[in-house]
Amino acid sequence: MSKMNKTIDPAVNYLLPLAKKAGLETAWDRYEAMQPQCGFGELGICCRICWKGPCRIDPFGNGPQRGVCGADAHTIVARNLSRMIVAGAAAHSEHGRHVALTLLEVGEGHAPAYQIKDEQKLRDIAEKLNLSPAGKDIKQVAKEVALASLEDFSRQKHSIPCNWAKETMSAERVDKLAKLGVMPHNIDAVITEIMGRTHVGCDADAVNVLLGGLKGALADYTGMYLSTELSDVLFGTPEPVVTAANLGVLKKDAVNIAVHGHNPLLSEIICDVALKMNEEAKKAGAKEGINIVGICCTGNEVMMRRGIPLATNYLSQELAIITGAVDAMVVDVQCIMPAITSLAECFHTQVITTMRENKITGATHIEFHEDSAFDSAKKIVEVAIDAFKRRDNRKVNIPDYKQTAIAGFSAEAIMAALSKVNAKDPLKPLIDNIVNGNIQGIALFAGCNNPQVTQDNNFITIAKELAKNNVLMLATGCGAGAFAKNGLMTQEATEAYAGDSLKAVLTAIGKAAGFNGPLPLVLHMGSCVDNTRAVKVAVAVADNLGVDLDKLPVVASAPEAMAEKAVAIGTWAVALGLPTHIGIVPQIMGSSVVAEFLTEKAKDLLGGYFIVETDPEKAADQLFTAIKERRKGLGI
Amino acid sequence: MSKMNKTIDPAVNYLLPLAKKAGLETAWDRYEAMQPQCGFGELGICCRICWKGPCRIDPFGNGPQRGVCGADAHTIVARNLSRMIVAGAAAHSEHGRHVALTLLEVGEGHAPAYQIKDEQKLRDIAEKLNLSPAGKDIKQVAKEVALASLEDFSRQKHSIPCNWAKETMSAERVDKLAKLGVMPHNIDAVITEIMGRTHVGCDADAVNVLLGGLKGALADYTGMYLSTELSDVLFGTPEPVVTAANLGVLKKDAVNIAVHGHNPLLSEIICDVALKMNEEAKKAGAKEGINIVGICCTGNEVMMRRGIPLATNYLSQELAIITGAVDAMVVDVQCIMPAITSLAECFHTQVITTMRENKITGATHIEFHEDSAFDSAKKIVEVAIDAFKRRDNRKVNIPDYKQTAIAGFSAEAIMAALSKVNAKDPLKPLIDNIVNGNIQGIALFAGCNNPQVTQDNNFITIAKELAKNNVLMLATGCGAGAFAKNGLMTQEATEAYAGDSLKAVLTAIGKAAGFNGPLPLVLHMGSCVDNTRAVKVAVAVADNLGVDLDKLPVVASAPEAMAEKAVAIGTWAVALGLPTHIGIVPQIMGSSVVAEFLTEKAKDLLGGYFIVETDPEKAADQLFTAIKERRKGLGI
Repeated sequence: MSKMNKTIDPAVNYLLPLAKKAGLETAWDRYEAMQPQCGFGELGICCRICWKGPCRIDPFGNGPQRGVCGADAHTIVARNLSRMIVAGAAAHSEHGRHVALTLLEVGEGHAPAYQIKDEQKLRDIAEKLNLSPAGKDIKQVAKEVALASLEDFSRQKHSIPCNWAKETMSAERVDKLAKLGVMPHNIDAVITEIMGRTHVGCDADAVNVLLGGLKGALADYTGMYLSTELSDVLFGTPEPVVTAANLGVLKKDAVNIAVHGHNPLLSEIICDVALKMNEEAKKAGAKEGINIVGICCTGNEVMMRRGIPLATNYLSQELAIITGAVDAMVVDVQCIMPAITSLAECFHTQVITTMRENKITGATHIEFHEDSAFDSAKKIVEVAIDAFKRRDNRKVNIPDYKQTAIAGFSAEAIMAALSKVNAKDPLKPLIDNIVNGNIQGIALFAGCNNPQVTQDNNFITIAKELAKNNVLMLATGCGAGAFAKNGLMTQEATEAYAGDSLKAVLTAIGKAAGFNGPLPLVLHMGSCVDNTRAVKVAVAVADNLGVDLDKLPVVASAPEAMAEKAVAIGTWAVALGLPTHIGIVPQIMGSSVVAEFLTEKAKDLLGGYFIVETDPEKAADQLFTAIKERRKGLGI
Repeated sequence: MSKMNKTIDPAVNYLLPLAKKAGLETAWDRYEAMQPQCGFGELGICCRICWKGPCRIDPFGNGPQRGVCGADAHTIVARNLSRMIVAGAAAHSEHGRHVALTLLEVGEGHAPAYQIKDEQKLRDIAEKLNLSPAGKDIKQVAKEVALASLEDFSRQKHSIPCNWAKETMSAERVDKLAKLGVMPHNIDAVITEIMGRTHVGCDADAVNVLLGGLKGALADYTGMYLSTELSDVLFGTPEPVVTAANLGVLKKDAVNIAVHGHNPLLSEIICDVALKMNEEAKKAGAKEGINIVGICCTGNEVMMRRGIPLATNYLSQELAIITGAVDAMVVDVQCIMPAITSLAECFHTQVITTMRENKITGATHIEFHEDSAFDSAKKIVEVAIDAFKRRDNRKVNIPDYKQTAIAGFSAEAIMAALSKVNAKDPLKPLIDNIVNGNIQGIALFAGCNNPQVTQDNNFITIAKELAKNNVLMLATGCGAGAFAKNGLMTQEATEAYAGDSLKAVLTAIGKAAGFNGPLPLVLHMGSCVDNTRAVKVAVAVADNLGVDLDKLPVVASAPEAMAEKAVAIGTWAVALGLPTHIGIVPQIMGSSVVAEFLTEKAKDLLGGYFIVETDPEKAADQLFTAIKERRKGLGI
């Protein structure tokens, strides 16, 4: 433990010793203090599902092999995992529902703060969902799309799959998943089903429980997909944008507002409002006015659509406060460390919670409602400006580290770039280069940070290896944050690390698309809810080749998986047919049945499977091996 | 531990030494082997919500006071509790949805195995749900009621409360709960919301998280209420019936089929089919044909409606197999110990799982579908008859213990009995006797068994105390099982234990209603999903008195709470305004904020609150004190 570096992020490495000196605690300190962590929990063999327990299975085989009810390690592990998956699905889907309900409001002429910013995308979606949008008023289309999306939260017929699941996968995949009984018909109902079937005395066949988990993961996929697509409709589909990342994006002479969390419904309005309040900020003494920066995936959302710089990713969120330069940290939902409020007490920083269902003890709560979005946003910015006046400049310590980052690579943006190479058949340049081996395959990096490993390091190490091997790379979430902060979302990184053939392709596309050079080494596809953007590209390629996803040389990797959302995402990636790497030992190893199912049997059933490898170099090898195996299967 | 008796059930006490001699393991053995149980889990301060963990708070204050993310003990405990509540809500609501969907099928003319057995109740429900049933065809009414019930699983407008919640509480209560933001609008959506808001980095204000938990509990209430009411429509509303309880109901010369679990959709059809297959059973050598017995709440369901005897309750389910006389144990959902399949391997007993979402490794799976219900049921009974042929009579050991039990006290049955005293105003005799103090109050016993305490003992001890103090007692679930097995659902128990004035009232009503003597000491109101039957009576009394539930001398007690369902039920009992006792230390004691909220602050907010007391005599005192306090409040 003591020998492991905490991070490769230079800004964090700069600030951590200062924090220590000042007696300020961070997640790394708490992680160290928590050692040794409970081995039963780590193995997934602790059951707290009823009050006869807690029960735990002896992994050495000397003590209890069953809980009080008789559940064995396999059942316990499978239940714990399935519940993690549906918690992830719940988090994503609440976000998706929120966006769908807002789109409905817009369609019905309410919620004046929001507009339909991408009409074409809305019509395309309506087409995909078989809603015959041609000739219809755009608000009517919005309403119909919103209602078709909300059907995926309300349908009671188990035999009809979710619209957003069915229409976004290949027919072959839909069929395969339906035969396994794992196609979701209703996101909420599936979450309820899985919470119910993991109740004491219910499903006690580990493989059956895992099938439930797969269904939950596909419910997650459904909620995520509609969340991203409808967000694009409301806030615009991202296009490439040059911006910056790391704590050096904070400005000494500006009111620094950090938007943090996941949901763009709030942050988009904050940005709209704050840009108009520059003068107020200047009046308060902030020469540079207002400076909005992002943290975590709210950061990715505004980075993708507005080029707002990213301050940092999950694990180092506290360090933003420790700079002493953040005047307000405005949070919505998910991945907000409760620690920030007590830390903020040592500074002038105002932590502002905004959602009724997501409060933090010690925060200022300014509740955000769509129908009065501007007012709430204005109040929040005012609080930030007011806090700026109390900023203690002696405590300000902004690390001089930031990197250029090119973001904004939505599926549409990638297609647009490709269409500059071949307007008639934009996918052709990509497919041709995959077939001829210039691009060996595609890797999607997703997921969180986790203090069990050196922050960002796995991402960067694996990516450099795969780059050498001419693998095209996409990234979302805190993975994207890692690449942005560490300079891999640049043209220079392509020059430095890409294998020759990959470099040639990225340069050809980049030049054709007006980048004056190659595309960045890793393409930023958005926040963690946006992983379906990569699916969209992959399914288009698969459809074009007439194969299912489980034949493509496409892999996924979550080298620092941490959140239940990541568990859900990884599982649907497997369900969709992808070899999916995790760089953290998942908390399932107490069951050979579960471990074998996920890493081996899933391959026969679904084509996809998990690869567990904590060593990043070995992980890169395994991912590339999986790509080569797929290429071989395709005969290319 | 070693000095505590395992049970007061004589049948179990007879069999346990035999099981030990034969080397057969039971839940009590596994409970002993599990000692000491994890203290962090017991206190609720273990967090496994993300893979930075597992984290645990040092309850002594020396070690970590926060998880890696910064969540403190209060947040961790509140999250764990809220997730337990929604898991309970999920289990109940899946059951409720299943019944509602079957009613819809019946309304649409499908599902030939099912009928509308209580047309009047269906019309009454339609009236309650404002569906204007007058003059409508009964199938149409069924359809409309089913759809209105399914609305409670699909509504997307957060501002409209669930039909079944709104129409079954006093307007005052609905208003109070709505103001707190805890009225559910959609059962599934609330479950999703709470799973989402307890995800890492979300709701981190313990009281706010608990408010979420309350909403989840009220979603549970909604799902339970509709489950019971619609089951009555399909299978008949229970009426008083004299039957028997305990393992002595098994018959040496019959094919013994134990129906176990919770959902009457299967067991009702099994009963229909089995009664017609007596001859097949006799042909196979079973002189007495087929003998159906119940276990747990499927047992309570068929006991209430058909007078089928109850073999045993939760904790002793394995003992049924150990008698060697159970030919088939047919299980549906919830509270089925996975241990039964390996135990059954030592006998001829066939464990038959029937639901796709609830399999057990080692069981025979005969999937049950409503549309082919008779076929599945026939196949199951055939398997049982076939198993009977392999029964080894040397292993048969049926304990000679059973008790008479009068069951069937639905709210309607209680009203019918009261109407024999006063046809015009049936509630008057009850209310008059409460007001004049002949009945001091009403206590509802609910919930599970838990090996932490001597099985059934808390129920019996508390009931005898309250009986002395002239408290009218109702029971459901494994609590009802405890009373039935131990002879408290008899007229003799009333004679033996009721205080004079209670005895006089129970005798007057019993005689008027044709019981030739008093009503039983404890009225069996059904399975654990049926707790809303008691609410129905209490709300009728409250409405009649023009007060809300939190003013009535009505209390609830779950002396052996174990399942997440029980956690949900207890919480909605508090939300509805009832002092609610639990006889097990709940896994929340690691947070003073949570403990104080549930036992004290809830009283100010909601009127209801938890009483935690493991000593049954003290618990009886506290429950009676709460009743007296309420009487004082009413000035009676």
